[in-house]
Amino acid sequence: MARRTSVDIDTQLLESCIEQMAQHGRHPEGGVQRLAYTPDWQAAVDQFSSWLAADGLEVRRDSVGNVYGVLKGEEAVPSIVTGSHIDTALRGGPLDGTLGVIAGYIALRKLKQSFGVPRRTLECLAVCDEEASRFHSNFWGSRAIAGLIRPGEAESIFDSDGVSLAEAMRACDLDPSLIAQARRSDINTFIELHIEQGPILERKHTPVGVVRAITAIEQLECNVIGRADHAGGFPMELRLDPMLGAAQMVLAATEAARRLGPPAVATVGRIRAVPGSPNIVASDVLFTLDARYPDPAQHEAYMSSIRDTFTEIADRLQLGCRQTRLLYQPATESSSELVRTIKEVASELAIPYLEMVSGAGHDTQVLARAGVRHAMIFVPSRDGRSHSPDEWTPTDDMVKGIAVLTETLHRLAY
Amino acid sequence: MARRTSVDIDTQLLESCIEQMAQHGRHPEGGVQRLAYTPDWQAAVDQFSSWLAADGLEVRRDSVGNVYGVLKGEEAVPSIVTGSHIDTALRGGPLDGTLGVIAGYIALRKLKQSFGVPRRTLECLAVCDEEASRFHSNFWGSRAIAGLIRPGEAESIFDSDGVSLAEAMRACDLDPSLIAQARRSDINTFIELHIEQGPILERKHTPVGVVRAITAIEQLECNVIGRADHAGGFPMELRLDPMLGAAQMVLAATEAARRLGPPAVATVGRIRAVPGSPNIVASDVLFTLDARYPDPAQHEAYMSSIRDTFTEIADRLQLGCRQTRLLYQPATESSSELVRTIKEVASELAIPYLEMVSGAGHDTQVLARAGVRHAMIFVPSRDGRSHSPDEWTPTDDMVKGIAVLTETLHRLAY
Repeated sequence: MARRTSVDIDTQLLESCIEQMAQHGRHPEGGVQRLAYTPDWQAAVDQFSSWLAADGLEVRRDSVGNVYGVLKGEEAVPSIVTGSHIDTALRGGPLDGTLGVIAGYIALRKLKQSFGVPRRTLECLAVCDEEASRFHSNFWGSRAIAGLIRPGEAESIFDSDGVSLAEAMRACDLDPSLIAQARRSDINTFIELHIEQGPILERKHTPVGVVRAITAIEQLECNVIGRADHAGGFPMELRLDPMLGAAQMVLAATEAARRLGPPAVATVGRIRAVPGSPNIVASDVLFTLDARYPDPAQHEAYMSSIRDTFTEIADRLQLGCRQTRLLYQPATESSSELVRTIKEVASELAIPYLEMVSGAGHDTQVLARAGVRHAMIFVPSRDGRSHSPDEWTPTDDMVKGIAVLTETLHRLAY
Repeated sequence: MARRTSVDIDTQLLESCIEQMAQHGRHPEGGVQRLAYTPDWQAAVDQFSSWLAADGLEVRRDSVGNVYGVLKGEEAVPSIVTGSHIDTALRGGPLDGTLGVIAGYIALRKLKQSFGVPRRTLECLAVCDEEASRFHSNFWGSRAIAGLIRPGEAESIFDSDGVSLAEAMRACDLDPSLIAQARRSDINTFIELHIEQGPILERKHTPVGVVRAITAIEQLECNVIGRADHAGGFPMELRLDPMLGAAQMVLAATEAARRLGPPAVATVGRIRAVPGSPNIVASDVLFTLDARYPDPAQHEAYMSSIRDTFTEIADRLQLGCRQTRLLYQPATESSSELVRTIKEVASELAIPYLEMVSGAGHDTQVLARAGVRHAMIFVPSRDGRSHSPDEWTPTDDMVKGIAVLTETLHRLAY
């Protein structure tokens, strides 16, 4: 089978690339912390650029510091792009984002060596900042590519030391007044390989996930309002205790997710009582709800049922309930023909795959907003870990994911 | 009825005393904040002393700053003492503690004017620090009287500015090396008048409460231990979410209090999730439980059933649960003969009363540990408010409470 030979991935190269990248931002207590526009980040970007150059790929750095490795095709535009982000979470791991950057490099290297100049231009991409671990910069790199950065935004967001994003860019020889130049309108297709960040592939002993949609993410802050009373002097039946309302709401939101079934999730990850004293019945309990479902209409119905239940609980207990939306990212469906192609490739390569939903947000969804055809390939996360020094994927599974990526790019570009 | 005339309380004097005391520590945004060993506190203590002196009561200041007004009897010892604390909660009100100090002064003044020298010595007392609003000093003034302050304790507790309690005492011309001298072994009886700090008397339109017991107070900190997971990537059925356990525990503790019935109470006043991020399933949820019941055996059974239920919930959800006792104050039963006397007095004065339990802790329970015969008289709290600028009691009700106190002291001392 010539096709299978064509995607033999160099395991040693893969492991070496991961190991080299993990040096840039190696955390003294384990894991990797590589934040946008820091010296560690700059070193990683330089490392990536030097790999590209060594393999004869054209290196292009855009005005926000995204780096492309270009394998020019007979038809110069539009491009088929693959990649992910090169920054990490605070004390993150070696694979989230980085694996997609390395996969893109290895895929293009392999295709160039095996097949030479493609018909259509191929590019591998290191997005400068996706995690927003240093600045509240919310998909900074991919927003630059999609033309979604607001004028003045770089001057208005600051890291914990009070350094603006604009200053941080300048420290890396990037001119914030040129951000708009990073916009691309010549990208036809974007494919991102990423670790799953969940336990499903591992549990199902499946090396590859083909992402059919990125879930909608909605976050509410709920303020349940009661009345502060003395924990000793006030009989139970005369209290207006918002803690009871909050407890019932936590259980109701979980129940709503269970009723809707996978991949619906609901999470209360933050909660506090005001004034927060052991011997005072709280006046307010504030908690966040993060709820996700990948189908837009069902997501809306799901959220609406949760909101209604919260209001019912508050009314029944004579409490107030103020709900504020903190975040809403609509669901993003992958391009169905691209999903079909990836699945066909996996089948031909005899690599087991699972069609699945991404429960996390990704650069892909931002590029999708710019009208780019898109899909994602997942590889397993051990124990579902991510944003953690524990991130790990068996090399065999990474190789299979990169093989599917490489062969898919081959089909699309040659 | 000569007896009723004997306890005509001077309403104007009462209102004037409350008004004068409320000036010392008047909070700019309303309410009173008078913390131990501050200039405001010193001014209040001086005010109290000057009232005592003007009415010919002997003023005695002990080594921690408790102030006694003494009406010496034919039998010099032991004494019958009444009073409460002169410090307030952080941004508290004009009545918590202070009303008991004023009531003691007005009662002794009245008895002296009406009946002259008693058979047994009477004293009215302003306890220096009960609220522990400045230092974690935990019934400081009454512990000094009961001989329950540990050597070196004044040097080892600090306010939020880093000032030790010993330094603060010295700033008020008190010598911390003499704390042990504040101990009294010549007190026979202590009666404390206090606002109820709950809504029961007001709801029952009853001006006076006769306290038959001070409730047991137990506080636990519960750490519910799960596993941090990505709020998007992790399916509901694979999570170990401690928030669900905590929510069930909150409801179970409340249900246990309801099942036992009044005056059982259970309060979760503080809660937090770790790491506390909206998009991360918590690894830990920590909350406090404050549970109270006035009967020692039933309190133990109640706490034990709550602890068992918490463990069951944790086991069912495959969570850990670590319970740490933060506080335990055993229940304190009032002296039954004193309760009987107070009730008889109220009946004779045709003042409606309710035999009840104190849900809050008081100086009385500390003096009880020193073997002093004791009881408390409550007057209503509007809307049950205390530790708040909203503290308020109708003057008529305060007058009735002070009348019962005065006549009770008359019975005991003349």
